Amino acid sequence: MSPSTVRVGVLGVGLMGTDHAERLAARVAGATLAAVADPDHARAHELADRLGVRAHEDPLDLVADDAVDAVVVASPGFVHEEQVLACLAAGKPVLCEKPLTMDDASSLRLVEAEAALGRRLVTVGFMRRFDPEYAQVRSLLAAGDRGRLLVLHNVHRNRSVPNADFRSEMIVRDSLVHEVDSSRFLFDDEIVEVTVLAPAPTSHAAQGVLDPQVALFRMAGGGLVTNEVFVNSQVGYEVRFEAVAERGSLTAGLHSTALLGTSTAGGEGAWGGVVPADYRTRFARAYDLEVQAWVDGIRSGTGAVGASAWDGYAATAVSTAGMASLASGAPVAVTLAERPALYASAADPVAVP
Amino acid sequence: MSPSTVRVGVLGVGLMGTDHAERLAARVAGATLAAVADPDHARAHELADRLGVRAHEDPLDLVADDAVDAVVVASPGFVHEEQVLACLAAGKPVLCEKPLTMDDASSLRLVEAEAALGRRLVTVGFMRRFDPEYAQVRSLLAAGDRGRLLVLHNVHRNRSVPNADFRSEMIVRDSLVHEVDSSRFLFDDEIVEVTVLAPAPTSHAAQGVLDPQVALFRMAGGGLVTNEVFVNSQVGYEVRFEAVAERGSLTAGLHSTALLGTSTAGGEGAWGGVVPADYRTRFARAYDLEVQAWVDGIRSGTGAVGASAWDGYAATAVSTAGMASLASGAPVAVTLAERPALYASAADPVAVP
Amino acid sequence: MSPSTVRVGVLGVGLMGTDHAERLAARVAGATLAAVADPDHARAHELADRLGVRAHEDPLDLVADDAVDAVVVASPGFVHEEQVLACLAAGKPVLCEKPLTMDDASSLRLVEAEAALGRRLVTVGFMRRFDPEYAQVRSLLAAGDRGRLLVLHNVHRNRSVPNADFRSEMIVRDSLVHEVDSSRFLFDDEIVEVTVLAPAPTSHAAQGVLDPQVALFRMAGGGLVTNEVFVNSQVGYEVRFEAVAERGSLTAGLHSTALLGTSTAGGEGAWGGVVPADYRTRFARAYDLEVQAWVDGIRSGTGAVGASAWDGYAATAVSTAGMASLASGAPVAVTLAERPALYASAADPVAVP
Amino acid sequence: MSPSTVRVGVLGVGLMGTDHAERLAARVAGATLAAVADPDHARAHELADRLGVRAHEDPLDLVADDAVDAVVVASPGFVHEEQVLACLAAGKPVLCEKPLTMDDASSLRLVEAEAALGRRLVTVGFMRRFDPEYAQVRSLLAAGDRGRLLVLHNVHRNRSVPNADFRSEMIVRDSLVHEVDSSRFLFDDEIVEVTVLAPAPTSHAAQGVLDPQVALFRMAGGGLVTNEVFVNSQVGYEVRFEAVAERGSLTAGLHSTALLGTSTAGGEGAWGGVVPADYRTRFARAYDLEVQAWVDGIRSGTGAVGASAWDGYAATAVSTAGMASLASGAPVAVTLAERPALYASAADPVAVP
Repeated sequence: MSPSTVRVGVLGVGLMGTDHAERLAARVAGATLAAVADPDHARAHELADRLGVRAHEDPLDLVADDAVDAVVVASPGFVHEEQVLACLAAGKPVLCEKPLTMDDASSLRLVEAEAALGRRLVTVGFMRRFDPEYAQVRSLLAAGDRGRLLVLHNVHRNRSVPNADFRSEMIVRDSLVHEVDSSRFLFDDEIVEVTVLAPAPTSHAAQGVLDPQVALFRMAGGGLVTNEVFVNSQVGYEVRFEAVAERGSLTAGLHSTALLGTSTAGGEGAWGGVVPADYRTRFARAYDLEVQAWVDGIRSGTGAVGASAWDGYAATAVSTAGMASLASGAPVAVTLAERPALYASAADPVAVP
Repeated sequence: MSPSTVRVGVLGVGLMGTDHAERLAARVAGATLAAVADPDHARAHELADRLGVRAHEDPLDLVADDAVDAVVVASPGFVHEEQVLACLAAGKPVLCEKPLTMDDASSLRLVEAEAALGRRLVTVGFMRRFDPEYAQVRSLLAAGDRGRLLVLHNVHRNRSVPNADFRSEMIVRDSLVHEVDSSRFLFDDEIVEVTVLAPAPTSHAAQGVLDPQVALFRMAGGGLVTNEVFVNSQVGYEVRFEAVAERGSLTAGLHSTALLGTSTAGGEGAWGGVVPADYRTRFARAYDLEVQAWVDGIRSGTGAVGASAWDGYAATAVSTAGMASLASGAPVAVTLAERPALYASAADPVAVP
Repeated sequence: MSPSTVRVGVLGVGLMGTDHAERLAARVAGATLAAVADPDHARAHELADRLGVRAHEDPLDLVADDAVDAVVVASPGFVHEEQVLACLAAGKPVLCEKPLTMDDASSLRLVEAEAALGRRLVTVGFMRRFDPEYAQVRSLLAAGDRGRLLVLHNVHRNRSVPNADFRSEMIVRDSLVHEVDSSRFLFDDEIVEVTVLAPAPTSHAAQGVLDPQVALFRMAGGGLVTNEVFVNSQVGYEVRFEAVAERGSLTAGLHSTALLGTSTAGGEGAWGGVVPADYRTRFARAYDLEVQAWVDGIRSGTGAVGASAWDGYAATAVSTAGMASLASGAPVAVTLAERPALYASAADPVAVP
Repeated sequence: MSPSTVRVGVLGVGLMGTDHAERLAARVAGATLAAVADPDHARAHELADRLGVRAHEDPLDLVADDAVDAVVVASPGFVHEEQVLACLAAGKPVLCEKPLTMDDASSLRLVEAEAALGRRLVTVGFMRRFDPEYAQVRSLLAAGDRGRLLVLHNVHRNRSVPNADFRSEMIVRDSLVHEVDSSRFLFDDEIVEVTVLAPAPTSHAAQGVLDPQVALFRMAGGGLVTNEVFVNSQVGYEVRFEAVAERGSLTAGLHSTALLGTSTAGGEGAWGGVVPADYRTRFARAYDLEVQAWVDGIRSGTGAVGASAWDGYAATAVSTAGMASLASGAPVAVTLAERPALYASAADPVAVP
């Protein structure tokens, strides 16, 4: 194995972790999958056997493994703090799926641990920053031809969610959190106030679940964001936005597919396209580009790319405020700790090929 | 002149009134332009001469004129009450441009006067109800295949507004008021609360003017509406909406034009279409269909069509609340008088050919 | 009845003639329906009674009727020559539905009769010239910013056609003929050669019917046109084109509807729009504008608008050549008679409001 | 270096070869760039130094190099035969950029050499087969819901071509050849007749150059293809098609970009997107997927993917006939040699992730 090949271990091999493991085994240049670990040992061994790698019983053993250069954390959020801290202690780059952790305090502890280390090892898996359209809009806005960004309209719809144990707060914490990060990314600014409102819910949501929700963000610099999150839309996965600047707007994700067709479906002639069923289709390329950029950054020594631990902490803090607003119906201010110098801005630029 | 031809007089021949006069003179079946009046007598006479009709010096003389069967009120809002009352007194159908009047009390007086009369003579010129797309969305929502309407997103942009004497409140009163009516029309429901927020303004607005604005409406039945109004967008006239229902959404006005092209403009190859410069292009057909439907209703005896005096009053009341919210930054409740039985619902259906 | 109101008689009250009669009775400013005639006397009387006008048993009596100022010919093509000649003899403007006549010689006789009269009384019902997009493309091409028109791609699809007595030639004569006229209109040039090719036919066409067909036109000035005509597409009525000029192209009719939506049809999420079922939806406005412009031209004395008798003759001649090409599989030259001075060009400009 | 990593040598490091070398060095999983060669030795050494690989002076030395497992041929077409034969002799997989060779006879010799070998080592670089939309259309057509493919409309435009030494035939040989392959791929059928027509040329082409051109293909099974190739469109790189089947059509590439915007360019408000400047933007992903699939096929031992030597030979034969048709203006039949059993069909299916 060439020294320039990054050997990656994956913690947690549920849906997302398995995706990452298969991606690292087959589609990432300059990387190999080296090991996996999961509390469900049978599942970990099965995947390890299929992909020809080692399975660890204890996640911390994987982090410590000399044959592992870098770690992807795809385990449940409540173990992220311990696993990311282990990576920091071992000096190994870590790509941690969102959320960074489940509450503000633990996210902040990770920020402080990394800041104490003095170099960025943590990337949070807000993959939209690597979606070519998101990246291009940020770059066009930064170029300035359309002036300052004033208003951002986000739409985030899922076909449906499992009803068992689903609570209204999960729409904020698991779905809206993506809007939180992409709003910070596109404005390059912090969110200072969040309001979450709920209209009369769809009859397709579980009893008592407030779906859809409409959220407003106020940015530190005065920008305003409207968000619709609707997780039982019955249609499919629709994620799009319109960024309204002083001289023109930019819209991404409007047409969920580049392929158009006519058909005779339903007796009435129709034209149009398919709405993807879930995020794996919509953001397939974003995930590939994210992991490739993460590996490239490790190999080239240019360091962490994408959303930082600070970004992960800020997203957690806004989510916490959003859940409070959903409960009270009133605007809730977001107050962040002081940002360590390690983190240059709300959203460091990301180059996308 | 056949008895079935409706002879129409036009009060006020500014931009809008002149449009209506020319439309009645040339493009409306079953109607003729009979007379015009304007405080600027020279302008009235010039138009009257050009179109071969009579000019009245006093608007109330036009209303009383035996050769006038019906009246279009296109004069400034502060004289609407007197002119519409004169039409009601004369028993003549009147198409009154929005706003019905400048304040809630006077609008309510018109409602009460018409209710006392016991028959509908007043149509308020919310022309969007006659735009084929708006009408079609209402009709598709009423058909119910997509379930109940949950959330409505409205966008309303103008290229620019004259800066002299422009005040932030005018965005609510003159622009957002269209969103007020179309939200009531699409939901077939009343607005019970309005919030108007202003992000850091565009540098293209006059000093002190809050532009753009983002407004939220809560509907009586629990629906929620987001609105962006931006009157100095520099681009053109963009009016569109997405109506999000329980099983699918409907989007109107997205592509401002049906004609697409590629071009070499600006050195970089581009494809797309033109954004209309103003409402006269965007809603040309809606105005034609509105006036035709108004004339058809008079001729056939089926009575008033389109937005009623009640709709005009409700729009004024929401605007008043919206201006208060813009000043305070807080949600403001909308409380309407009791609706007289003459007005069946928030928005009577309108058939569009 | 005011002398300025045009009293129109309609010959032939099948589908198209009934449409025209209803349009004239209700939606055309400055016109009234005065009389109808049809070989099916019962049908004529029924419509006349419903619309409150006179029915003639003999079409020539309608033409001669003093209470008829102008005539719409919507009867079958084989009686067009006699009826249009009668209108010319009576000096009455006539709007004749396409085809002008069924063969070159009779079409040419009408051209010569009108030329002998020295003024244009005949308009052929190629309504697409009044479709706002077609008119706008012609006007943009004439403006010259995109340079000379080089290639035109036309697509013309119908959901299905009645199978009884349907022959392959009818695709050329009844459908492709619209492409013939719009190609002449957009290029402002004559067609000098036509080739009609047939791929292996769809299984949805009747036995022996060649559907779809692909036709090529060579224009006198060197332009080239590709045409697809497919009358059993199963989808709906799709009529669109891309006009490719030296510096950019223009596409009309691509999105058959301005209203977009998402839906859950067929189990898979979809977005898009509806394809209209037939020409009456797609070209509703073009028909209205055509008849309004025809009436306006009569009232204002500015004379005939739209496609002329010459245009009708040229279309017939190209259709004849096209049917020969379909039979032989080889290109067939189109040779026209000399164009009388009365007809300025292949396609006189048409102003659309 | 792991035995499972494919070490690739690149022959020819012009624009395309340099792209491939950089792709192999950085973006392909399971492959490394091992060596480059170019008649311009300085250029080869410069690139080799930059990417840290070996440079060969003689291309056949690169093919023979034990440290090279597989070869990309990106040299000029007239040396392809010798270089591909060398790869076949060495038993090394080769990805040869189009055209396979410059004439039918030499392409056929490669087919026969590979057939004699009895296993497929040659992939021809028709990258469109790996474009997700092309692959998806083929797959949807194969699924059969829309019935049999009847007519295909291809559009291929370049902003401009260098004028020096440009000849009309190059439009057929270098541009239309892509339409040849994608028509064969989408129909899964051979082209039996080609006609190339030229309208009056654009003023932006060099003196004497026939641009644009319109070509027709007849497929063995009766399908029909229209093609527009326009290499001086001034706009940008537009490659799209509509595939018309018995029950619905499929359109790919219509919107050249997923990002839409409004802008104030040129004084008039506009909405739309950017047309890519060249094929590297439009087909960036197709190239990446093509090379990745080629490497994956080598690693997994499943053998050659994408266009075969037979596909390359057939494309050359149609191009030759097309150039003859351009000269004569008449249809030219395409007669292929008998297809060796090694090649299952006109276009083997390609799976795209």
